[in-house]
Amino acid sequence: MANMMILIFDGISDRPVKDLDYKTPLEVAETPNLDSAAERGINGIMDTIKPGVIPGSDTGHLAILGYDPYEVYTGRGPFEAAGLDMDMEPGHVAFRCNFSTLEDDIVVDRRAGRIKEGTDRLAKVLNEIELGVDFLFKEGVEHRGVLIIKDSDLGAKVSDVDPHMENASLHTSSPIIKGAENERTSQLINKFTEMSIDVLSKHPVNLEREEKGLPPANVVLSRGAGVVPVMDSLMERANIHGAAIAGIPLVRGVCKMAGMDIISVEGATGGLDTDIEAIIDSSVSEVQKHDLLIVNIKGPDLLGHDGDAEAKVDFIEKIDSKLGVLEKLEDVCIAYTSDHSTPVTVNNHSGDPVPITITGEGVRKDRVSSFDERSCGQGGLARIRGTDVLNIMLDLVNKAEKFGA
Amino acid sequence: MANMMILIFDGISDRPVKDLDYKTPLEVAETPNLDSAAERGINGIMDTIKPGVIPGSDTGHLAILGYDPYEVYTGRGPFEAAGLDMDMEPGHVAFRCNFSTLEDDIVVDRRAGRIKEGTDRLAKVLNEIELGVDFLFKEGVEHRGVLIIKDSDLGAKVSDVDPHMENASLHTSSPIIKGAENERTSQLINKFTEMSIDVLSKHPVNLEREEKGLPPANVVLSRGAGVVPVMDSLMERANIHGAAIAGIPLVRGVCKMAGMDIISVEGATGGLDTDIEAIIDSSVSEVQKHDLLIVNIKGPDLLGHDGDAEAKVDFIEKIDSKLGVLEKLEDVCIAYTSDHSTPVTVNNHSGDPVPITITGEGVRKDRVSSFDERSCGQGGLARIRGTDVLNIMLDLVNKAEKFGA
Repeated sequence: MANMMILIFDGISDRPVKDLDYKTPLEVAETPNLDSAAERGINGIMDTIKPGVIPGSDTGHLAILGYDPYEVYTGRGPFEAAGLDMDMEPGHVAFRCNFSTLEDDIVVDRRAGRIKEGTDRLAKVLNEIELGVDFLFKEGVEHRGVLIIKDSDLGAKVSDVDPHMENASLHTSSPIIKGAENERTSQLINKFTEMSIDVLSKHPVNLEREEKGLPPANVVLSRGAGVVPVMDSLMERANIHGAAIAGIPLVRGVCKMAGMDIISVEGATGGLDTDIEAIIDSSVSEVQKHDLLIVNIKGPDLLGHDGDAEAKVDFIEKIDSKLGVLEKLEDVCIAYTSDHSTPVTVNNHSGDPVPITITGEGVRKDRVSSFDERSCGQGGLARIRGTDVLNIMLDLVNKAEKFGA
Repeated sequence: MANMMILIFDGISDRPVKDLDYKTPLEVAETPNLDSAAERGINGIMDTIKPGVIPGSDTGHLAILGYDPYEVYTGRGPFEAAGLDMDMEPGHVAFRCNFSTLEDDIVVDRRAGRIKEGTDRLAKVLNEIELGVDFLFKEGVEHRGVLIIKDSDLGAKVSDVDPHMENASLHTSSPIIKGAENERTSQLINKFTEMSIDVLSKHPVNLEREEKGLPPANVVLSRGAGVVPVMDSLMERANIHGAAIAGIPLVRGVCKMAGMDIISVEGATGGLDTDIEAIIDSSVSEVQKHDLLIVNIKGPDLLGHDGDAEAKVDFIEKIDSKLGVLEKLEDVCIAYTSDHSTPVTVNNHSGDPVPITITGEGVRKDRVSSFDERSCGQGGLARIRGTDVLNIMLDLVNKAEKFGA
């Protein structure tokens, strides 16, 4: 047996839903292909981080890639930065940013009318700010961007400038935990915010927008500060080569930070319109070229956030209908799982464990024949952690190293 | 209930084997005594270290004795040294050694013709080398030996002098991880290697061997450097007295380092010819004299390494046939388990969990009635770690201490 594939059905896992006769969407959905995998494989439930702890998409994927999120994750910023291909070094501090609209010191639009054009020109003047330390701002999709302060002796335990709501004042960042390093970061991000107002307010892009009656992008609001972590690459750790298919930049960023290649699939949007067939077809061919392929399919999470049980059932069935080709990958060790639960009754992530099925040569097939939260819990894997997955798979494909003699 | 016994069937655990209709050797073997234990006991699966991590015999036994191998294990040397009853102190660095045959700087026989006689005389001149620091060399069985450098400020992250293959040059040891301590160890072991050639080449034992046409033992090759760890003894930790029966020196060394007595049983060879009946008979009487008795039976591991499924089935049945007397030990808490899987399909250790059954007064008997990898997985212990075993048993015999008030 050669290579490994981890299919992450983002947020597919759920809680029992009254309207579904106290079944979960995954229990209700007709999923002959996932059930066939459960039948052929070994099954269990997985706490991506630990029981009851609610994973983010970033921390969940980090754990599945074998990293302890408590060690490498101080905030989302660095992983967003990686998703935008920005250069950074361990110790730098990165922030997620929005171009926003300020009126008399009040944030009236956190997304500056979801500005689409001209953000590259705005980024150019932002990068000319005299902050006193090296930094880099890069624009992302629409109103989004990332700021990296490229200096040492910086902390990330600082409050956000972004008020996280509209018609509120700008916040002044301050240390959440006392200390000179956090103090320094707060001072720098407050200074950057102030200077962003100076250089953006009078910028031609914004003058044009105001002429057209569009909200100007006249401030950069930052949040999610994180220290760029030292992350030993998967390559080095297990002497393997990894790649990832993921529609959303944050997951791409996490995989990139882990030293993986990012594969773009046309039509893989990360939305409900994503082309599942294209993703699976690409996975079937890409897994032949890499020791490990991570595949993220985002849809179920979005419908969990929406609280739409029926639509989640339908989307799960739609995914399942495309998975038949995976059964032919006889020499690949495949894990079918999720990064976290997104119950339709919660409208957000939850800390409930997720189902996991592992197929491939040598697995101790069990009696489970249905891929869902409760059936998998009766399987031979019992209850594992996210950080166990890659170790278990490396062992199954005989690529793990003995610890001891 | 009084005492505890842990029976470690070395490498008994396996993966499903095609030739056995996708059952494991343990599932196929007729094991009425082990099954009776499962029936009377509480059952589970155990990751000796953690899921997917492949244990060595040393790290596996350390974990079962309650030590975190990541804390106490830097290499095999110290445990081999303990197996030879050598004196050492925490911080010293120990190496496994071979007497080998060198011809024009090429290792032509890594075992010097499995030299049997005269190694004590060779050890004597080795111990007279002027290395500049205190050290001790001791000969072991046949060509084997152990070197301890008895100094402080030494590291063990150094490459081996032993090329691990024949018709290869001696390697020069160098640090695997940079640092003054590893550098110093490399320099000392390189110097020792060179000086071993000087004192051994012209030694009468070797001149006699050459006259007889036998390969001379004219160099000491070292490998498996390890820093002697601080290991709090079982005695101190749990206020118990422990003893071990084990055919192989490495396991004896681990148990000795844990502060246990080593009991020799005539006929317990650690090989396939080992006298299982003698081991079990001795266990039945010794467990009355010690709070904890560890018993290692090595055979199944050897047959896993050989990849011989049928022979493994037969050997398991042979072991089982001798276990009937254990049922009469009503006042002993007994764990039946293994240190790691050695699948016949892998020909080496693997990271698959092992079955565990615990019998004795007070256990929450479950519905499992067969001692094997998959049946035990359905039991009341669920999935535990190696480091849990002794805590669970101490609790069952009411010798554990409350944590808190």
